[in-house]
Amino acid sequence: MAQQKKLVEAITSRDEDFAKWYTDIVKKAELADYSGIKGCMVIRPHGYAIWENIQKDLDERFKKTGHENVYMPMFIPESLLQKEKDHVEGFAPECAWVTVGGSEKLNERLAIRPTSETLFCEHFAKVINSYRDLPKLYNQWCSVVRWEKTTRPFLRTSEFLWQEGHTMHETEQEAQEETLQMLQVYTDFYKETLAIPAVTGRKTEKEKFAGAVATYTIEPMMHNGVALQGGTSHFFGDGFARSFDITFTGRDNKLQYPFQTSWGVSTRMIGALIMVHSDDDGLVLPPKIAPIQVAVIPVAQKKEGVLEKAGELKDRLLEIGLRVKLDDSDKAPGWKFSQYEMLGVPIRVEIGPKDIEKNQCVLVRRDTREKTFVSLDKLEETVQELLADIHESMYNAALQNLHEKTFVAHTHEEFLDIAENKPGFIKAMWCGDSACEDQLKDETGGVKSRCIPFVEEQLSDTCVCCGKPAKHMVYWGKQY
Amino acid sequence: MAQQKKLVEAITSRDEDFAKWYTDIVKKAELADYSGIKGCMVIRPHGYAIWENIQKDLDERFKKTGHENVYMPMFIPESLLQKEKDHVEGFAPECAWVTVGGSEKLNERLAIRPTSETLFCEHFAKVINSYRDLPKLYNQWCSVVRWEKTTRPFLRTSEFLWQEGHTMHETEQEAQEETLQMLQVYTDFYKETLAIPAVTGRKTEKEKFAGAVATYTIEPMMHNGVALQGGTSHFFGDGFARSFDITFTGRDNKLQYPFQTSWGVSTRMIGALIMVHSDDDGLVLPPKIAPIQVAVIPVAQKKEGVLEKAGELKDRLLEIGLRVKLDDSDKAPGWKFSQYEMLGVPIRVEIGPKDIEKNQCVLVRRDTREKTFVSLDKLEETVQELLADIHESMYNAALQNLHEKTFVAHTHEEFLDIAENKPGFIKAMWCGDSACEDQLKDETGGVKSRCIPFVEEQLSDTCVCCGKPAKHMVYWGKQY
Repeated sequence: MAQQKKLVEAITSRDEDFAKWYTDIVKKAELADYSGIKGCMVIRPHGYAIWENIQKDLDERFKKTGHENVYMPMFIPESLLQKEKDHVEGFAPECAWVTVGGSEKLNERLAIRPTSETLFCEHFAKVINSYRDLPKLYNQWCSVVRWEKTTRPFLRTSEFLWQEGHTMHETEQEAQEETLQMLQVYTDFYKETLAIPAVTGRKTEKEKFAGAVATYTIEPMMHNGVALQGGTSHFFGDGFARSFDITFTGRDNKLQYPFQTSWGVSTRMIGALIMVHSDDDGLVLPPKIAPIQVAVIPVAQKKEGVLEKAGELKDRLLEIGLRVKLDDSDKAPGWKFSQYEMLGVPIRVEIGPKDIEKNQCVLVRRDTREKTFVSLDKLEETVQELLADIHESMYNAALQNLHEKTFVAHTHEEFLDIAENKPGFIKAMWCGDSACEDQLKDETGGVKSRCIPFVEEQLSDTCVCCGKPAKHMVYWGKQY
Repeated sequence: MAQQKKLVEAITSRDEDFAKWYTDIVKKAELADYSGIKGCMVIRPHGYAIWENIQKDLDERFKKTGHENVYMPMFIPESLLQKEKDHVEGFAPECAWVTVGGSEKLNERLAIRPTSETLFCEHFAKVINSYRDLPKLYNQWCSVVRWEKTTRPFLRTSEFLWQEGHTMHETEQEAQEETLQMLQVYTDFYKETLAIPAVTGRKTEKEKFAGAVATYTIEPMMHNGVALQGGTSHFFGDGFARSFDITFTGRDNKLQYPFQTSWGVSTRMIGALIMVHSDDDGLVLPPKIAPIQVAVIPVAQKKEGVLEKAGELKDRLLEIGLRVKLDDSDKAPGWKFSQYEMLGVPIRVEIGPKDIEKNQCVLVRRDTREKTFVSLDKLEETVQELLADIHESMYNAALQNLHEKTFVAHTHEEFLDIAENKPGFIKAMWCGDSACEDQLKDETGGVKSRCIPFVEEQLSDTCVCCGKPAKHMVYWGKQY
């Protein structure tokens, strides 16, 4: 019993120390563990099962929009990485380099892919010849490496899992539409599957992807008001195509350059799930990606008929396609309650001798802890309604947090005051000059532009920093 | 039209030049392409879709047998790799080494995983404390790197995709049972999904995995009589556990070492699919893993009603859960026939104005080219029966090839004669001494022991090489 208690001992309070609370959850909900390599993590079964559910859902969305999966090598020869100059400047400083293969020193260093634009371009140059070969709508699930100085599980690691879409199009307009379509796919996925609302828009020049013409971003807000770059979609114009000499014969029989996009989301989304939804008792998972959606816990399980009935409930819920676990181990029910709360299981079903007598069971939802008694005749429909309601409530709670922690700054003083005292997003006007971004970041200890939303409000006529005429309304915030 | 013809121009004949035929298929069936990095390939959409179907099927089998997926880092510090001495001797010579991270030289070189026993052991040491923590039944889908000198797409590449299972058990017997269970999972998968028969058994000491107590293998035979190591399952005893100091408190309250297994199959299976089933017109895919199971080709598609009817047939086949493609492009039907044969699509449905009049369509199976007219009223059941029959026929044809190309050698002369003149497996007795394996390999230009089968025949009393008393019957053969 001593060991059992220890396993579910309290974690650090979220309001007391958000960072420690976060790593406590990663550890105690058995999502990930540290490895012996700096900045690399072991993704444990519970964490990986969440990732598998994320993959399955997203992959369906990608295929529905016409994309095909491929696999490119993990190595990028240094000369290939250097073909696009902005791109190499952005990524070379954080590459891991292979210099020895077998027992021989390599003639040319190989970067482990930090992202694969260059590899896709090398391949596109071979397989695109005519407008009939377009569009190419490719995606890849893989791991990438970026040699990070400070790391945190899921949020920033030297190696992480992600998907990277890479597409080539006949016209500029088609590529731009693809870029925005994929941002919308991400936005829908965040809302419909992760129950996470977010601000979306375009990155400023300063914050855009190395080599892109335009970068679009989805920026969910964490419970403590800090932003997370939740996914990006890039429009490249024909810049890479020119650098890599990718051409096709058009409908007019003339040689031309195709237009390109790329877009990606990563295991960082698991970090977002923690920081948006979870609480002092552990993980809270939205039902759609919870590896276990319902935990069935028998009470007084040694009493006659209890385990049988619990097994029956499990089978009935499996039957309607839910992911269910019956815990009939010899641990105490109280320990089990805490354990499945820690793991973020959306619904707990309790069933004991008295419940059986009354032809009922107890449903406890993880998000609000609300407890209801349900007739066993209505088990399936009630559980399904409850799962839908949990998703809805979680989304609404996160949306309320986003609204409550979004502030408007009309003046420089207001901006600095909010940055210091009210964690969250700041909406403020901006002149378009990156010098102002630098100044605001310095003055606030790290508040950066998050994005220019698709619909801008006209909060005032002048830049919140320099007072010159404003060009855009920008969402600002600190980031993970 | 000129370009269309070129796309489906004849490939090298299989009987003329097997190696060139193989690479022609890889290229023309659009499975893979070469990349700019020696020995690394680009897996194209059609090849990757096969891999996805393989993954889905195998992953279900792994989960049904209680395994969970995880993800370990891709890097192994040199000191970690060195902890088990046989293992490091086996793998260090073919590792790719990262020596620079960002702009700094690393204090310790990092190998890119050639296999992940050491990483799993490091993690197991942390999470295994009590017999209650056992078994640990983990699997990982990832890519690994082995710096190969000579490479061929899918068969031997410097980077390849695979799954690696790693399990830890309380008792030796349980671990041995797991090792054999997973070999059986592979054998079932080869038969039921890939339609490939194989010989299975134990590797000799000389051929076993670096660090294993025993290695079990599945050895399918290619059409030309050459063997392929199709998958392996290893029993480690407690050797790694001792090297990595992994201990647990047993039921007797004493500290002890757990027993370990690992097992893996890779994208090499796609190579086996080509070399077992395919022919001079391209790929032939077993229905269970074919990305497209049925291609619907309209004939005289500009005639009224043809495209509508073709679309109707497609929808009806989609409805029963098949993977169907309707090709309504403006290419000629003949070109389409050849193209979907090249891609290995198991069934082609042809539908034209005359067929519509007669309420029928034409079904052409890829494996035998047999053509049947089918009433549209019986489309679904006929297609499903045909798919099952194609699987069966493909398996039987491969089995016949395996039987026809398996020979028995009673004497040294017979062995050398068969090795020179009859490509295939040789069954022959062996004394158990690796010196005889070396000698036979040298004398035959590469015939090696494939495995000791679970049921051995007593072909004679003496070793086919040295004449000393025989210990085992061994399957011998050349390998890819």
